[in-house]
Amino acid sequence: MTIPTPLTGVVPPVCTPLTPDREVDVPSLLRLVDHLVEGGVHGLFVLGSTSEVAYLTDRQRRLVVEAVAGHVGGRLPLLAGVIDMTTPRVVDHVREVTAAGADAVVATAPFYARTHPAEIARHYRLIAAASPVPVIAYDIPAAVHTKLPADVILDLAAEGTVAGLKDSSGDLAGFRQVVTGARSRPDVTGFSVLTGSELLIDAALALGADGAVPGLANVDPQGYVRLDRLCRSGDQEAARAEQERLCALFGMVTVGDPARMGGGSSALGAFKAALYLRGVIECPVTAEPQVPLSAEEVERVGKYLAGAGLL
Amino acid sequence: MTIPTPLTGVVPPVCTPLTPDREVDVPSLLRLVDHLVEGGVHGLFVLGSTSEVAYLTDRQRRLVVEAVAGHVGGRLPLLAGVIDMTTPRVVDHVREVTAAGADAVVATAPFYARTHPAEIARHYRLIAAASPVPVIAYDIPAAVHTKLPADVILDLAAEGTVAGLKDSSGDLAGFRQVVTGARSRPDVTGFSVLTGSELLIDAALALGADGAVPGLANVDPQGYVRLDRLCRSGDQEAARAEQERLCALFGMVTVGDPARMGGGSSALGAFKAALYLRGVIECPVTAEPQVPLSAEEVERVGKYLAGAGLL
Amino acid sequence: MTIPTPLTGVVPPVCTPLTPDREVDVPSLLRLVDHLVEGGVHGLFVLGSTSEVAYLTDRQRRLVVEAVAGHVGGRLPLLAGVIDMTTPRVVDHVREVTAAGADAVVATAPFYARTHPAEIARHYRLIAAASPVPVIAYDIPAAVHTKLPADVILDLAAEGTVAGLKDSSGDLAGFRQVVTGARSRPDVTGFSVLTGSELLIDAALALGADGAVPGLANVDPQGYVRLDRLCRSGDQEAARAEQERLCALFGMVTVGDPARMGGGSSALGAFKAALYLRGVIECPVTAEPQVPLSAEEVERVGKYLAGAGLL
Amino acid sequence: MTIPTPLTGVVPPVCTPLTPDREVDVPSLLRLVDHLVEGGVHGLFVLGSTSEVAYLTDRQRRLVVEAVAGHVGGRLPLLAGVIDMTTPRVVDHVREVTAAGADAVVATAPFYARTHPAEIARHYRLIAAASPVPVIAYDIPAAVHTKLPADVILDLAAEGTVAGLKDSSGDLAGFRQVVTGARSRPDVTGFSVLTGSELLIDAALALGADGAVPGLANVDPQGYVRLDRLCRSGDQEAARAEQERLCALFGMVTVGDPARMGGGSSALGAFKAALYLRGVIECPVTAEPQVPLSAEEVERVGKYLAGAGLL
Repeated sequence: MTIPTPLTGVVPPVCTPLTPDREVDVPSLLRLVDHLVEGGVHGLFVLGSTSEVAYLTDRQRRLVVEAVAGHVGGRLPLLAGVIDMTTPRVVDHVREVTAAGADAVVATAPFYARTHPAEIARHYRLIAAASPVPVIAYDIPAAVHTKLPADVILDLAAEGTVAGLKDSSGDLAGFRQVVTGARSRPDVTGFSVLTGSELLIDAALALGADGAVPGLANVDPQGYVRLDRLCRSGDQEAARAEQERLCALFGMVTVGDPARMGGGSSALGAFKAALYLRGVIECPVTAEPQVPLSAEEVERVGKYLAGAGLL
Repeated sequence: MTIPTPLTGVVPPVCTPLTPDREVDVPSLLRLVDHLVEGGVHGLFVLGSTSEVAYLTDRQRRLVVEAVAGHVGGRLPLLAGVIDMTTPRVVDHVREVTAAGADAVVATAPFYARTHPAEIARHYRLIAAASPVPVIAYDIPAAVHTKLPADVILDLAAEGTVAGLKDSSGDLAGFRQVVTGARSRPDVTGFSVLTGSELLIDAALALGADGAVPGLANVDPQGYVRLDRLCRSGDQEAARAEQERLCALFGMVTVGDPARMGGGSSALGAFKAALYLRGVIECPVTAEPQVPLSAEEVERVGKYLAGAGLL
Repeated sequence: MTIPTPLTGVVPPVCTPLTPDREVDVPSLLRLVDHLVEGGVHGLFVLGSTSEVAYLTDRQRRLVVEAVAGHVGGRLPLLAGVIDMTTPRVVDHVREVTAAGADAVVATAPFYARTHPAEIARHYRLIAAASPVPVIAYDIPAAVHTKLPADVILDLAAEGTVAGLKDSSGDLAGFRQVVTGARSRPDVTGFSVLTGSELLIDAALALGADGAVPGLANVDPQGYVRLDRLCRSGDQEAARAEQERLCALFGMVTVGDPARMGGGSSALGAFKAALYLRGVIECPVTAEPQVPLSAEEVERVGKYLAGAGLL
Repeated sequence: MTIPTPLTGVVPPVCTPLTPDREVDVPSLLRLVDHLVEGGVHGLFVLGSTSEVAYLTDRQRRLVVEAVAGHVGGRLPLLAGVIDMTTPRVVDHVREVTAAGADAVVATAPFYARTHPAEIARHYRLIAAASPVPVIAYDIPAAVHTKLPADVILDLAAEGTVAGLKDSSGDLAGFRQVVTGARSRPDVTGFSVLTGSELLIDAALALGADGAVPGLANVDPQGYVRLDRLCRSGDQEAARAEQERLCALFGMVTVGDPARMGGGSSALGAFKAALYLRGVIECPVTAEPQVPLSAEEVERVGKYLAGAGLL
């Protein structure tokens, strides 16, 4: 399908459920997709950071896109991450995920390699030239250690290289610069500006964002869809209350003991534990080398769910 | 072949020559290998950062290892990088490069994903379990944004998980901690400690390092082999003079205009320009999205070569 | 005077006009204070980062507080920065600025010295013990290279150690955590949460902030006061339009050529050039070793003023 | 006295002993100075980072310089830190410490304020213009978050602005660039290049450094003086053994529990505990807001001393 212009609403980065031996658990994955679709989300983003894309082999990535594309069957726009270090490797992923049914691809700045704004622009131009579907830029400095400059993004938008931005930078002022630029520059049209934040969706929509890509929407899609609706209806008070409920729920990402594991193990472990406790997926295991949550930590995830009325 | 224990001497990270349309230029690659072998190097490291591993597709990576392994035919130890974000993806590369003939694999800490010392240890244990050949840890915080802690490396060495360290951290005090620990801990045996620096090999060998993996040895293998020999013979004055000549030559990495390109484009572009000017490779092109050196910048590379007596 | 609880509205960090030979230009400073008071601001913050506090000698700092305190005479709450590396030095500044008439002091985490959350808490407790007036925590990681953790701030608020937070971190999600915590924790009362952003005041107020401390309010106090009023009246559309006008005006901070000067020279130089062009201060010079704007760069500041209707 | 050109040997950054109520303990300070002088050191550096300069009030700083200058009476060159955020504040310290008897001043790049190479050069030129004694540049990115560029330092050396460099950057390759440049540039004469490392003095001297400023020399001045002598005599093996003994002793900086305190509290606490255990100073207390070592941690410092033959 052709993705909407602009793409609006809630587009969760879909978790990748695994079996105990770390294979993609396709039945759980499809149950998760159903859970999201029934929750009212407006699109799906597979192979994002929350999907543990960095941990999935090429074979597993392909399996995920094929399974979800086949199951969704064009009912919703399907975005797929093409996360790799540099242009030639990203282009290989573009070929794979579009053959498997992705409606748009989502690409970061180069990483591992040192980079430069001119190289970032070149990177996106070559990806766009190789892609049969729209390219969405993914700004995630915590992972790639480079911030996508607002002016580079806007220039790439103006020339038609990128069709949107997914901003996971945490820098709302920089995000605003893209949103305002995309609206005020006459040479930029049909560009989608999406926040990757779980915590500032009310603020992002208020300043003009088109939509949101919150990892926590795996756990509570209804909550994020409701938040999106309240923001659009202008009911600021109710939107803020819903956003605050979701902020409290997001506290689950800190359950993992920082002496035993990194922040990623804790956050992705908590999302999967929550999906497991809610009965959506079969097994809460995360990919290697992430450290699993302890039973006590999983119990604390349950308390966050209960606190948000989800258990 | 079985790699020596410890691995000593000069083990260059081999550049990957490309054709103008960015395919691996196998004839140039083999000429470069001959140039290094004739220069007296003690091993070869393909698919390292200087090899533009981050830019090579899986197909190209395989081609490089097969071509070099076939050409070298066991005359020298052949190390191959298995550079990817996390354990499952690295393990796939281990399978590929060892099938293609690598005698050891070289793996970094996880990147893109946030990580933790406990996860790093887990990562190396799983790689070692999956590898038919020794695993060498690659400490390169500039690329992966994590420093391998000395105590983690030494514990992994003691348990036989890693067979060596390639240190490109720039932190010689931390490197010394591993060198001294590897010599003083009775539970660590046969562990190779290699510096990735071009500029401090005399210092690294003096404090007990086993060898060096300098990218600039592509350009001047004789120089680095001579430096290694002078250090081992105890002729400190002559070693320092040779090291300083090579430091001056290394200045070539700054030829690229920082307003136009990143430091990687400049450094790798300079190495390849030098190999081209010295007649070793057919074409100095670097992989996308790196920005090529201008004619004037290439000319400055030539001046560095002339200054070091290499043209 | 006792500062209001909570402190709300617009509290500009007051620029410190200098004479050509870098002495405090007291008449210009008092004209600037009048310009701000007439603009309707709700408080004044002297000796902040925008005030070039890092560049002022102790004698100059004292002169600034005395001059402003004497001139304001209790009409508005007067906050004063006590910016120094560690507790004993900060405590000395507390003594000076309170003797000179400050109604509250504003202190950062320790800097230069490495620090730790436990040391940060200890720091604020000792400052509070030594201060006759309320202590406001100043979160400015770009300057001190440490982020004040939300839970540390809230605990310090609960025990009465800090009376407010000025957040210049750029991390609105972390800021929200403090705002929400301050409202939801029953042990926290009368705590003022202020954003230091020029660009996200509508968003910060919408999520519950009490006020703002925008450097650009030196240049356009009426604009920020209008923005504050529109936000409080619930006119979200008009607030957004005013905020966007101010965002465009803020573009002036980039006029300085990054090849010739740092971002601070450019931003503070632009604010002072704007105050000079608007006729508020006598001389646009900044403190050493900042690089002055060129005539052409000052002209570009003028264009930003004209674009915002201020010339 | 006029400082030697170049300044060579061991120049310890002198700890500042405090009384239990955090006043400068002058008798202990003078005992420490005697301990260092008797240990054979070649100069003294007061008000450095190891001296807790960041924690000392202006009054305490003055007291330290006066006490030490009076006690040393020109027997040894006396360097004094003038550590503050920017030029005008540093210039005030220059006036104070030179009036109190310092033979040279040691200044970092600006901090707290954002900076730029052009501003750093301007900073040092203005300090030099205001200083009656030589200015030594202090490269300590861990504290000031800026690296002094080698070419800036060499240009400042050539024009006579700075008389030396104290390098605490940990970047030995960059340090080598200054050492080699200072020796090879005909326009640079009489410039002293000193390493601030405790762990790489043999390496630094081997590549041409003039001397060292190791904090640990407070604890074991004889050891560092012996190391310096062995390096100069060319006995590389014995030098390495002595350096390794001192590296092991340096392990004491890690005794503090990272869950309870920062790295500074641990390192400075360990140095002072060691001086206390060796009977040099009266009280091991560190300045606020540093967290004190526990009795068990102090005991571990004792074990490091015993292991190095110092108890």
